[in-house]
Amino acid sequence: MANYKLIIAYNGASYIGWQRQPKGRTIQGTIEKALSRLFKEAIVIHGAGRTDKGVHAYGQVAHFNMTKDVPADNVKRALNHALEPSIQIIDCECVERDFHSRYCCQGKTYIYRLKTHTQKDPFLSECWMLYPKTLNEKAIRQAMPFFIGTHDFSAFTAAGSDKEDKVRTIYDFELAISNDEWVFNITGNGFLYNMVRIIIGTLIKVGEGQIQAQSIPQLLKEKSREKTRFTAPAEGLYLSKVYYKAIEYQKIQSDSKA
Amino acid sequence: MANYKLIIAYNGASYIGWQRQPKGRTIQGTIEKALSRLFKEAIVIHGAGRTDKGVHAYGQVAHFNMTKDVPADNVKRALNHALEPSIQIIDCECVERDFHSRYCCQGKTYIYRLKTHTQKDPFLSECWMLYPKTLNEKAIRQAMPFFIGTHDFSAFTAAGSDKEDKVRTIYDFELAISNDEWVFNITGNGFLYNMVRIIIGTLIKVGEGQIQAQSIPQLLKEKSREKTRFTAPAEGLYLSKVYYKAIEYQKIQSDSKA
Repeated sequence: MANYKLIIAYNGASYIGWQRQPKGRTIQGTIEKALSRLFKEAIVIHGAGRTDKGVHAYGQVAHFNMTKDVPADNVKRALNHALEPSIQIIDCECVERDFHSRYCCQGKTYIYRLKTHTQKDPFLSECWMLYPKTLNEKAIRQAMPFFIGTHDFSAFTAAGSDKEDKVRTIYDFELAISNDEWVFNITGNGFLYNMVRIIIGTLIKVGEGQIQAQSIPQLLKEKSREKTRFTAPAEGLYLSKVYYKAIEYQKIQSDSKA
Repeated sequence: MANYKLIIAYNGASYIGWQRQPKGRTIQGTIEKALSRLFKEAIVIHGAGRTDKGVHAYGQVAHFNMTKDVPADNVKRALNHALEPSIQIIDCECVERDFHSRYCCQGKTYIYRLKTHTQKDPFLSECWMLYPKTLNEKAIRQAMPFFIGTHDFSAFTAAGSDKEDKVRTIYDFELAISNDEWVFNITGNGFLYNMVRIIIGTLIKVGEGQIQAQSIPQLLKEKSREKTRFTAPAEGLYLSKVYYKAIEYQKIQSDSKA
């Protein structure tokens, strides 16, 4: 019995999400079907996290067990040949038996892509949040550092969240702007349901002048969703990287706490 | 009873084609459903041409009749509000009663977008043909002019084509290259089923050295699909413009015949 780790990129636009469902096209279901057909055994894959309908990934991680002992490179090649281009395997390796994509996960980076001054466009709208107006960059940059560090993120998660402990640590939160393209990069030890989309949604309200940058610490403290109701749309969100070594953060963490 | 003309852009990636079908998401069906719901009458739209599954449009044209007399700008605004961003109305105008998007059509321009040196990529593969290798640009540029003019295109249409007359006139055929992005522009008085995709497929074979540029006139003359079997994939194809005035071509036509 071998244990395989996959790194997966996908365009989530035409899928109803990561998680296998009785009906509808999912990322997990599509990969499992391809693997099971290729290697003639029932294969179940476990993702590091479930992405919602329309959310993308550059570096989702999943693992699976297989009785056959197939070289990892051959698994990668066969899967990429079998899969449509909307899902691609970036890497496949054989890992230790006790590796589990979710339980061993130490952190994740998400990317959020937003285009300002852009109306609905059939060729951009699946992979960017299109925002037709101007946002106050200075106010957004003032608000972002308040999210870094360890906080109770109750005010920044959707009602459906089943995790009791709402405390998470954000190690790093950056924004790169090139022309009308805004790319947010957020890294933390874990993210609650819809947490990135609600943080970005709140920053948009800050950029519109509806929420003050300086009020973020108060919003975190209040733990209420009353003022953080705007969830940025799925199409801008990318699961960029999943980390399995805590050490990769130590520097960032101590920097941001300094 | 008013007659409306729509100019429509769409990303065809998540549709099974233009034409309404009993099952599955189509461009025509989606627009008809939105119009009928908005204006509370059963509305049927007629497109200038049917695009296949996965084919896109920058400027498809359709017309429809409606008993209500709604200003064209309001129709455009209401439709764009109702439609997902994957379909957008570029323009809407009231036209004469005898305007018919298909019967009055005098010509069309198609665009074909190809990226060389690019492997499957989840975020490009819906809107480009991705070609992983190098193509011989000089050979392709030598082959292209042979398509210009009036020819029997029997060798360049799919078996399913129901049109008896296979003679069409190509007015213009251009290629613009920027880095690894190749954009073909082809304008003619009409196109047979799969004609653009088979012409591009044949040019790719020319670029690979499998077909000689000088053999194109002979392929046209032979009227057989034996040597023109490669149909370029749908995702690179865009219906760019539909023309209703023959005069727009006279210059191009006489230039290319010179």
